[in-house]
Amino acid sequence: MAPGAASRTAPIFQLGKCLAIPMQLHVTNRQRLCNRIRDKLSLLDTGRPLMQNFSGVYIVLQGGTDTFLGDSDATNEFRQESFFHWTFGVLEPDCYGTIEVSTGRSALFIPKLPEEAAIYDGESASCEQFSKKYGVDETHYTDEIVSCLNSWNATLLLTLCGMNTDSHRPTVEAKFNGIEKFQVNRDILHHEIVSCRLIKTNMELDVIRYTNRISSAAHRHLMRSVKPGMYQYQAESIFRHYCYFHGGMRHMSYTCIAATGCDCAVLHYGHAGAPNEHQITNGEMCLFDMGGEYYCYASDITCSFPVNGRFTDDQKLIYNAVLRASRAVLNEIKPGADWVQLHQLAEREILIHLKDGGLLIGDINEMMTSRLGAIFMPHGLGHLLGCDVHDVGGYSNDAPPRSTLPGLRNLRTSRLLQANMVMTVEPGCYFIERLLNQALSSDTLGKFIDRDQIERFRKFGGVRIEDNIIVTEVGYELLTDVPRTVEEIEEWMSSKSEFYRISMK
Amino acid sequence: MAPGAASRTAPIFQLGKCLAIPMQLHVTNRQRLCNRIRDKLSLLDTGRPLMQNFSGVYIVLQGGTDTFLGDSDATNEFRQESFFHWTFGVLEPDCYGTIEVSTGRSALFIPKLPEEAAIYDGESASCEQFSKKYGVDETHYTDEIVSCLNSWNATLLLTLCGMNTDSHRPTVEAKFNGIEKFQVNRDILHHEIVSCRLIKTNMELDVIRYTNRISSAAHRHLMRSVKPGMYQYQAESIFRHYCYFHGGMRHMSYTCIAATGCDCAVLHYGHAGAPNEHQITNGEMCLFDMGGEYYCYASDITCSFPVNGRFTDDQKLIYNAVLRASRAVLNEIKPGADWVQLHQLAEREILIHLKDGGLLIGDINEMMTSRLGAIFMPHGLGHLLGCDVHDVGGYSNDAPPRSTLPGLRNLRTSRLLQANMVMTVEPGCYFIERLLNQALSSDTLGKFIDRDQIERFRKFGGVRIEDNIIVTEVGYELLTDVPRTVEEIEEWMSSKSEFYRISMK
Repeated sequence: MAPGAASRTAPIFQLGKCLAIPMQLHVTNRQRLCNRIRDKLSLLDTGRPLMQNFSGVYIVLQGGTDTFLGDSDATNEFRQESFFHWTFGVLEPDCYGTIEVSTGRSALFIPKLPEEAAIYDGESASCEQFSKKYGVDETHYTDEIVSCLNSWNATLLLTLCGMNTDSHRPTVEAKFNGIEKFQVNRDILHHEIVSCRLIKTNMELDVIRYTNRISSAAHRHLMRSVKPGMYQYQAESIFRHYCYFHGGMRHMSYTCIAATGCDCAVLHYGHAGAPNEHQITNGEMCLFDMGGEYYCYASDITCSFPVNGRFTDDQKLIYNAVLRASRAVLNEIKPGADWVQLHQLAEREILIHLKDGGLLIGDINEMMTSRLGAIFMPHGLGHLLGCDVHDVGGYSNDAPPRSTLPGLRNLRTSRLLQANMVMTVEPGCYFIERLLNQALSSDTLGKFIDRDQIERFRKFGGVRIEDNIIVTEVGYELLTDVPRTVEEIEEWMSSKSEFYRISMK
Repeated sequence: MAPGAASRTAPIFQLGKCLAIPMQLHVTNRQRLCNRIRDKLSLLDTGRPLMQNFSGVYIVLQGGTDTFLGDSDATNEFRQESFFHWTFGVLEPDCYGTIEVSTGRSALFIPKLPEEAAIYDGESASCEQFSKKYGVDETHYTDEIVSCLNSWNATLLLTLCGMNTDSHRPTVEAKFNGIEKFQVNRDILHHEIVSCRLIKTNMELDVIRYTNRISSAAHRHLMRSVKPGMYQYQAESIFRHYCYFHGGMRHMSYTCIAATGCDCAVLHYGHAGAPNEHQITNGEMCLFDMGGEYYCYASDITCSFPVNGRFTDDQKLIYNAVLRASRAVLNEIKPGADWVQLHQLAEREILIHLKDGGLLIGDINEMMTSRLGAIFMPHGLGHLLGCDVHDVGGYSNDAPPRSTLPGLRNLRTSRLLQANMVMTVEPGCYFIERLLNQALSSDTLGKFIDRDQIERFRKFGGVRIEDNIIVTEVGYELLTDVPRTVEEIEEWMSSKSEFYRISMK
């Protein structure tokens, strides 16, 4: 075969002229997973001679299924369950997948649809077409899964059983009629697949680079489009349209937060009860935390800026406190860096800057010990990013335990960084009525706050600066590409130029 | 109180400058429901003297809850369950609502959120604020529902138990710890609330008029924006952005169908397995079936047109067959009209036009008897529209039974029309490989088809023309406002004018 011939016929996913993704991404993921599981099984004293060559051991995963609105036939637009996507990349609901651990041989099981479905949803792909589309070794119908496993002499099924450490919700575990006839192990798979998802491959990194490229461009576009008088939901709509039209992003990674003014102090503003509903007023800050996803890989970016394109002195003060924290953290990012310590570094930088600005009084070390930082930044510094926006593995497996201290207990991971982890770095500084009052009435915290100065910021809202990065062998790769300094933002919002510098990179 | 003072302080829902909706809409819905239930209970020989004044009888509904992606903490953007929305208009998840049948007194029960939720989601509204926001008589926390019902001397709870006749899925029935201590009737409520939802109030009609106004404008905008070379998903993005930016429509009523070319023959194209992914080619027809929703009320509109703005003769032939069917049906719409007969009228008009165009041969009555129409229009003529895009009540209660005949069995309702029903009228004509081959190889159907002529249409795709209408006392009100005749479409797509006529209206 001529060089390149394989790649020209190798299966890919691509929407329009957007990023083409080789199904080899999932082949590699499956190989990594099988390697880990073989290593794991080798170390187990199972007492079963079969374990020597792992023959008969199968990973069994169940894909996502449609969710409906109440009793109606209206579905949420289907988006694949993340473990299943990571492993197989299948777009359709209601599938199963198996991998033979000894050989890596992969199979998909697809639902046999009634004849009428062809009229409504189009002709179903045949099993052969499915195998070709997704680069798996074979495809059967879901009602054949028991007979297939029997014919393959399956002796042990590994199913996915674990708890997500962000949602505290259980994984989707494979279930089908007849699984009770097999020996099933529920303990091994989750640990190993989470360990794999924690560290991204180069092909996965390319997808996340792409999602950041599109979402960054959407943020830049939005910064120039938003105007006083506009409503927050209109800003959300501009962002979503840019991501979908230019980047093929049908889904957002999470509900768009299009906060302005005091809404910026609500960390997850924009939900159904507060649906980005307010009018944007001249002089306000915007805090736009939005990211599109492509091929079930996330981006998660926050830009904070004044809606009218010019910072006031107070806005500069708070913004630069956060930017200083962001850049201090980025400078320390490398394999081995301790995420909990980086969180504390961000807190310290913000406290120093607030003290310089006259809002705080006293000794920074004492403030740190008293956990004053958690009043102004109650959320964690950032989180793992991947197929889930809060990606798995933050506290599972070998991660250090969760802190019980204010602020630190909200960290989504306690890990030491490793190369090819993808993280958000998102320090913030907020003026949250409830927390400020709590601090002001506290013996340990109240003394640090200048009660006269702080009054000016009661309705300020807050600032968050969120970038996505890859941990590299020597430091980090910054994926997010938006104006960040006060000068860059003011220049970008006032000019028509396509160019800006990212300083302090 | 001065005239108008009440309305100035009466609670409304409004996003930006979009339609303001008085909470009186739900007060009226609840009154209608209680009236029906009192009538119903009066007719029952319950042997319980209590039933004479209905004291102690309470309707209990459970609202929708967040749905998550797999094990993660990512939620689908919450959209309220439709029965609960119809009754209470509450935006937030995880609520309950009760109505005292004798008095109509309404109560909401809202979740007590942990303190930390205030930091992430904003300060929760108090019970008093909730009552004011939604125009209910009182609000409590969900853990107080049993004690409230006890203190109100509730003796009989009516819960929602029924089957959706489109999805064949069960309703969301209220469940809470302690409900087993009450007498519960599951038979009465569903029948009565579905009967109410079937006939819209004037306030509901205003919302549906609005959703049609915005979605129609979005379709008109899209007709002028779409160009050969664009991808289908980009057309979807343009539509969604218009609806949200200009109309406050965060949700679509259903997954957008942005079909072109042969994809137009796939009735529900655009789902996750076929995500509007193809490039649009010059000369193709578009079939754009998209509708936005506002305040949980749907719109459902299809425009079919040539992407380049000029119909070919073959495109005109098929398009006019469908337009003729559409207008013939509209002319017959009035209270008492039989939906099954209207479906057959549409079929007949299409068959006549296809015969005139040389595609069919033989006697139209014979074609009708042989169900040839179902080859070209396999779906039903249209459906009820309301809080669900396929609104409830198509076959429930007193509706005639579902037909077993091809085409007719896919009708979503068999009802006689009544004033203030809202319907879609959506005849279509498609060239579906599987059905054409089935017809050509059939003794009863093959003889009607000109085998030479039909070959030309194998890759044609299809045409659907879908309008939304209100049945009025004397006929219908057309809600959809888009160019419909060949001339109107060609004029609209070639000019910059804001005006066009709807002929044949």
